[in-house]
Amino acid sequence: MSANLLNIKLEFAKNVVRQAGGFIRQHLSDDLEISEKSHFDDLVTNLDRDVQDQILAQIQTTFPGDHLLAEENDVRHAIQDGNVWVLDPIDGTTNFIVQRDHFAVMLAYYENGIGKIGVILDVMNDNLYWGNGIRSYKNDKQISLTPKPLRQSLIGVNTYMYRTNAGGLLDLSHESLGVRAIGSAGIEYVNILEGKIWGYFSNLSPWDYAAGAVLIAPFGYVTQQLDGRPLDFEGRQMMMSVPSNQLAALSAYLK
Amino acid sequence: MSANLLNIKLEFAKNVVRQAGGFIRQHLSDDLEISEKSHFDDLVTNLDRDVQDQILAQIQTTFPGDHLLAEENDVRHAIQDGNVWVLDPIDGTTNFIVQRDHFAVMLAYYENGIGKIGVILDVMNDNLYWGNGIRSYKNDKQISLTPKPLRQSLIGVNTYMYRTNAGGLLDLSHESLGVRAIGSAGIEYVNILEGKIWGYFSNLSPWDYAAGAVLIAPFGYVTQQLDGRPLDFEGRQMMMSVPSNQLAALSAYLK
Repeated sequence: MSANLLNIKLEFAKNVVRQAGGFIRQHLSDDLEISEKSHFDDLVTNLDRDVQDQILAQIQTTFPGDHLLAEENDVRHAIQDGNVWVLDPIDGTTNFIVQRDHFAVMLAYYENGIGKIGVILDVMNDNLYWGNGIRSYKNDKQISLTPKPLRQSLIGVNTYMYRTNAGGLLDLSHESLGVRAIGSAGIEYVNILEGKIWGYFSNLSPWDYAAGAVLIAPFGYVTQQLDGRPLDFEGRQMMMSVPSNQLAALSAYLK
Repeated sequence: MSANLLNIKLEFAKNVVRQAGGFIRQHLSDDLEISEKSHFDDLVTNLDRDVQDQILAQIQTTFPGDHLLAEENDVRHAIQDGNVWVLDPIDGTTNFIVQRDHFAVMLAYYENGIGKIGVILDVMNDNLYWGNGIRSYKNDKQISLTPKPLRQSLIGVNTYMYRTNAGGLLDLSHESLGVRAIGSAGIEYVNILEGKIWGYFSNLSPWDYAAGAVLIAPFGYVTQQLDGRPLDFEGRQMMMSVPSNQLAALSAYLK
């Protein structure tokens, strides 16, 4: 695909995500319709669905040949097959419901499985993180980032994996200055981009990591399964986003 | 003590904490001198000590008969004995070092063990939370807060206690929408006051909870040991800050 069309898609992605953020902030004090999905603590709201419908409709109108992979309503196109947009309309839905803070809108665009565009909006701080896999920006400013060694750093974790030492994560955490858990993959990726956490370990679906993986790639980060295999962009998988030049040091702990 | 002198002390406390916040923000891009205390992940900086020295000197000059209890340099007066100021110059030192965010300055004032003043500054957001145990304010606005049931709420936890089920905390957490861990007691109390977490469970020293306990008391919160006994304001203790009208529901889990 031409660089020109890719730039058009990048500007489109930034715009629709910014619009979605404005829409969510406008409806912040509305009474939400909250539904349980799998369990009492797995929630979705009418706003999650409204935002997804709005963004997917804009993609389909503007780029009718492209495909969709999104969190709600079982929208599931295979990542390897052509031009695929990956959307999480509200990442950190529980934070959104309880805190009205610490949630994100995330949109990514992949071509035959290769990440070309990543956009994350930290909705309440109104900061837009966006990139093309080569450079990443916070609003209008290019991001620079050089990860420190793990022993001088904090890591973001999924609390279940941490407490059960899944994949050796608890053992690994003892080599860091500590763990943090904030309840939104999008905000964890923001914290990597801000240099606040060194890496992120969780059990995620493709819309949780698709945009973040593109945004952190320019700084030598890899996003892969805990055991080193690639993510499949299908079901949930135990994964990590970490500096690739420190992978060897992790291998003593991760299993 | 007269209400008038107590008001003078409250204004004094707000002022010295605001000044300390300004001082820290001014030195945010300095190279820090970082020292290990008990272990590589238990850190203190020159700024922790500078801020403590500055605030304690102001207290001693202004209220020479009052006593001091503070985090650094073994400043330890018994809380039950007279007029005692309790200071944490930088709460969340690891966050301060690594993130330059998510840390607090905390100052409290107790008379014969009774909390009379609590002040917490969320330094990077420059929000001052302050109160007299009867009313609490965020900057110039009085705070109102009505905790929801645990099952519609998030809780703040110490990750060690959570993963080892200390006192039954892991069991209890399954009755909530999830746990969050952010690495600063001060910011956890801010999050209670903001309605973002329902309660906080940790293993704390007196300067970690003295100000927060005063600030959340007007909303029916108690701050006590996990087993219900009072905190002694001496060593570290496993503790919780929770809505007192929901204590009965906790007793099924906490042990």
